[in-house]
Amino acid sequence: MIAQRIAALRRIMKREGWDAVVIPGSDPHSSEYLPARWQQRQFMTGFTGSYGVVVITPTHAGLWTDTRYFIQFDKELAGTEYVLHKLRVPDAVSPSQWLGTNLPAGGAVAIDGSCMSVAEVEELRAAIHPQGGRIADRPDFIDELWPDRPATPDAPVWVLADQYTGRSAADKLSWLRGEMAARQADAMLISSLDDVAWMLNIRSADIDYTPVAIAYLLVTKADATLFLSLDKVQTADVQSHLAALNCRVCDYGTVAAAVASLPAGTRLWVDGGTLNYALYGCAIQHLGSGVMSAPLPIRLAKALKNDTELTGYRRAYLKDGIVQTKLFKWIEETLAAGTPLNEMDIADKQIALRREQGEYIDESFAPISAWGENAALPHYEPSHEVCSEVHPKGLFLLDSGGHYLHGSTDITRTIPLGPLTDLEREDYTLVLKGMIGLATAVFPRGTRGANIDVLARIPLWKALRNFGHGTGHGIGHVLCVHEGPQDLRQNVYDQAMLPGMVTSDEPGLYREGMHGVRHENVILCRELEKNEFGDWLGFETLTCTYIDPTPVLPELMTDEEKAWLNHYNEYVYIRLLPYLDEDEKRWLRSKTIDAQL
Amino acid sequence: MIAQRIAALRRIMKREGWDAVVIPGSDPHSSEYLPARWQQRQFMTGFTGSYGVVVITPTHAGLWTDTRYFIQFDKELAGTEYVLHKLRVPDAVSPSQWLGTNLPAGGAVAIDGSCMSVAEVEELRAAIHPQGGRIADRPDFIDELWPDRPATPDAPVWVLADQYTGRSAADKLSWLRGEMAARQADAMLISSLDDVAWMLNIRSADIDYTPVAIAYLLVTKADATLFLSLDKVQTADVQSHLAALNCRVCDYGTVAAAVASLPAGTRLWVDGGTLNYALYGCAIQHLGSGVMSAPLPIRLAKALKNDTELTGYRRAYLKDGIVQTKLFKWIEETLAAGTPLNEMDIADKQIALRREQGEYIDESFAPISAWGENAALPHYEPSHEVCSEVHPKGLFLLDSGGHYLHGSTDITRTIPLGPLTDLEREDYTLVLKGMIGLATAVFPRGTRGANIDVLARIPLWKALRNFGHGTGHGIGHVLCVHEGPQDLRQNVYDQAMLPGMVTSDEPGLYREGMHGVRHENVILCRELEKNEFGDWLGFETLTCTYIDPTPVLPELMTDEEKAWLNHYNEYVYIRLLPYLDEDEKRWLRSKTIDAQL
Repeated sequence: MIAQRIAALRRIMKREGWDAVVIPGSDPHSSEYLPARWQQRQFMTGFTGSYGVVVITPTHAGLWTDTRYFIQFDKELAGTEYVLHKLRVPDAVSPSQWLGTNLPAGGAVAIDGSCMSVAEVEELRAAIHPQGGRIADRPDFIDELWPDRPATPDAPVWVLADQYTGRSAADKLSWLRGEMAARQADAMLISSLDDVAWMLNIRSADIDYTPVAIAYLLVTKADATLFLSLDKVQTADVQSHLAALNCRVCDYGTVAAAVASLPAGTRLWVDGGTLNYALYGCAIQHLGSGVMSAPLPIRLAKALKNDTELTGYRRAYLKDGIVQTKLFKWIEETLAAGTPLNEMDIADKQIALRREQGEYIDESFAPISAWGENAALPHYEPSHEVCSEVHPKGLFLLDSGGHYLHGSTDITRTIPLGPLTDLEREDYTLVLKGMIGLATAVFPRGTRGANIDVLARIPLWKALRNFGHGTGHGIGHVLCVHEGPQDLRQNVYDQAMLPGMVTSDEPGLYREGMHGVRHENVILCRELEKNEFGDWLGFETLTCTYIDPTPVLPELMTDEEKAWLNHYNEYVYIRLLPYLDEDEKRWLRSKTIDAQL
Repeated sequence: MIAQRIAALRRIMKREGWDAVVIPGSDPHSSEYLPARWQQRQFMTGFTGSYGVVVITPTHAGLWTDTRYFIQFDKELAGTEYVLHKLRVPDAVSPSQWLGTNLPAGGAVAIDGSCMSVAEVEELRAAIHPQGGRIADRPDFIDELWPDRPATPDAPVWVLADQYTGRSAADKLSWLRGEMAARQADAMLISSLDDVAWMLNIRSADIDYTPVAIAYLLVTKADATLFLSLDKVQTADVQSHLAALNCRVCDYGTVAAAVASLPAGTRLWVDGGTLNYALYGCAIQHLGSGVMSAPLPIRLAKALKNDTELTGYRRAYLKDGIVQTKLFKWIEETLAAGTPLNEMDIADKQIALRREQGEYIDESFAPISAWGENAALPHYEPSHEVCSEVHPKGLFLLDSGGHYLHGSTDITRTIPLGPLTDLEREDYTLVLKGMIGLATAVFPRGTRGANIDVLARIPLWKALRNFGHGTGHGIGHVLCVHEGPQDLRQNVYDQAMLPGMVTSDEPGLYREGMHGVRHENVILCRELEKNEFGDWLGFETLTCTYIDPTPVLPELMTDEEKAWLNHYNEYVYIRLLPYLDEDEKRWLRSKTIDAQL
């Protein structure tokens, strides 16, 4: 089937005179996770990873992805024509660089400009320019290959109340207009879905696990216009919420026309890093140099969580702590009873337990429930159709999260289900040392993620081990589970870690065909104190699920690390006590207080 | 006197119609340390720090410098009109940014284009452009204010033999021409003095502590031309060395004419980051788009030391180890005898001891010999005119280095001269933990200095302390004591640490009016091994001078850190034994083996 789709695309290429086609994996909003309609990459390849770029020429079909997905590529694309191009490895060649070398002189590269950002297209253009290459922008060229392509989703919009957001949409709009005035902007076009949702305190269910609506928001000095499917805003409370904000509603398809009818001389602020190339082109055509491209201030403001949001996160992690205590006890007892259990049974049980906690919306991403060697795929996604049985030995890894009305979670625990090998224990211990090393960091204001990322890696590095993904990402408040602008990784240098940022701390270690370990807590950046040497920041751990000490090799831990683990587990035990029955209390005590190092 | 010079410059500004004058602190070769002729900044301000930019307007006299020199500014410029503008602090405003805001619309900024790099001038131009500001390039405008301005230095050139360099100049030229061919360059103009010296294996004494000649080198496919004062190359061996390389010698002042007489169509490779603006302008005027600006490959090649150079470094540190054992013993005995001793006595004694070791050329920088509160100035430079007595209490800091024919050193030791305060011990211990943390790092190929810099800081950060300078710099081989391209600091991300790089590891802690601590070892990046997780690198410590364990607070050290220190001191003792007399052996044993933690 994949071969037929490649062949069909090549027939179109021949007809149109295209020498290459680029299919990045995004939608008109630069989203990371996509509605079915925009899963062109998966349609063309069968690859289900969350990151990748496809380039097809008459003689080559390549997929570029990073270390997280190398093993998955081999599994999912075996037998197809696709060649893996590795990213985030030494001497990696990007798709643009590859085209710069491999495109014939004067060649044409076809793209869907509605699904690539201005920045992506400009990078591509710069790479092929020296050889006289040109871009052919053909929105939705995939339609011809994909007769049953899904429609734009139209889940209803709902309002996230101020009691959860801590800040009214009216206040956010007023703040944004101040930012616009400071940059002499008359209007702002917002295309990132989580920016739109955050600005208006609205949510929806258009993307699996990400409670946003497919929409654009155009804000001017006096009013605002939300562009989305009108079917989505039929309830009275949503309509009155938007009306109170002086926010009109227009059909999704009319955004380009609205941009084109802005008064001449309007200074329009957009973010070329995320705005799609087609809409940007429309703005440039109409407003010319009136279009100002710069990062929107929403991204940073959204990342600096307010006290209401932080209280909501703490409640969410408390709930997850209760859920996971019950879940891990249930797994242990189920296995002990000899009852068959598979990875999806565990994921489903956890969802049921989260729902019981109340104010639950959905999972914040597809749960990674992985036993044994499956855990060696950092982003393994089991399904009801394909998943493994779980047996009482080795390590089981569960990376999951939930959206509650008051906050979202992301947590990974690796738990022993029975006897472990020495290597499993070593890896478990070294990864834990890394997680603790970062969680206990203290640093002066101005420090970036790339400066402290090593604290989560150095225990592994000293044992000549490493993991091929970032150490941490920001986490949205009832929004995207991966949220910028901060990042904890080696190669991202542009954003300082600031008080109010909520970020994951998730080192790991993966051995193909053997096992995988990841420990993930979520940490809040907080002010400590100021003195003559600096303005000092540190982290508070928000996650409230015990970490099993029994696999730890104590001789590899420092006294400080052991004390941290013992103290953390004691804290978890004490916080969860009021919410557990007697049996659960005894069980959690056996995993924490009674198991101290 | 400073006030008169500022007033005289302002009279010139008025006459010429200049609204501002920028005086950066460099020479035509972007050197860090300068011959007296190019110390315009010091002439105009009296400031002796090694880094700073002066901007003078009709109403403002400002000096921009970084954290290393804040205290020194206050001491040296007290009573002058100069205002300190702090760099490397949060929200720092660069001189260009300041001019962008403070220059009147359409104003003129005067510069000496022969003493600023293309990159510096372009940054300035971009900053003042929005307000219609323009650059007035007036080479040597300082001459009018400075009637007794020193001449260009003319120390003789000498040849550093292949037995010391490990690579002949002929081989280097052949390699360079290969690099030029790969980039389609017909010629290369080399203006960095250490690049010129390294390429031709020549040295001189034109700059204090930096054994280079003031010269340019123009390399073409067939030959090379060295531009320098002809008085410098009068010896037969230098002349025959250059002749064998097919390297002509021309007068220093003729370089611009030589560039202007390159054949039309020549593709000339220069580095706009270091080449001066005046000479670059000459090249552009003559060759237009034939001028290609890109970093020269010499910089990285020079940083990757060969085995001969590394053997030379090891011998140099061995010699320094012998020197410092004798020196520290002599200090202790002199103080015990009640003989008066000052900071310069110690610096002079060390120079005499280095000279005794043979193959000694000079110090590699002005020694920082600092007792008590003087050590709180990270770049304090005592002189015979102004220095402090040393007394048997507190901490004494000695940061110094020597050039031997086979290699150069840079080492800092902080030693106790008598009773210490608890805070002195704490700071001593925490800085030492940082130095060890970096020295013992293991990291995959591709890791940059900014990624591991924190390992030298985290013990201090956890105690809410920090130091305001970089952690480490490359060290030239009988060249500049500060050598790129690698750096160990928070904000420099562009160069990976590579095998063969020799870098300092020198965290510190400074308390104004109290004390200063710095421990500096020099570390060599080496390959460890490759495995499935990466290509692993680590450091070998080259420095061979004991670190006094007696000030250490053992309760602040991990077992690994104590083991590292004990092992290091034992290694130093064993390596130095063959070179010490019985009395010295006993004394060193008391500082190392007998003082283990």
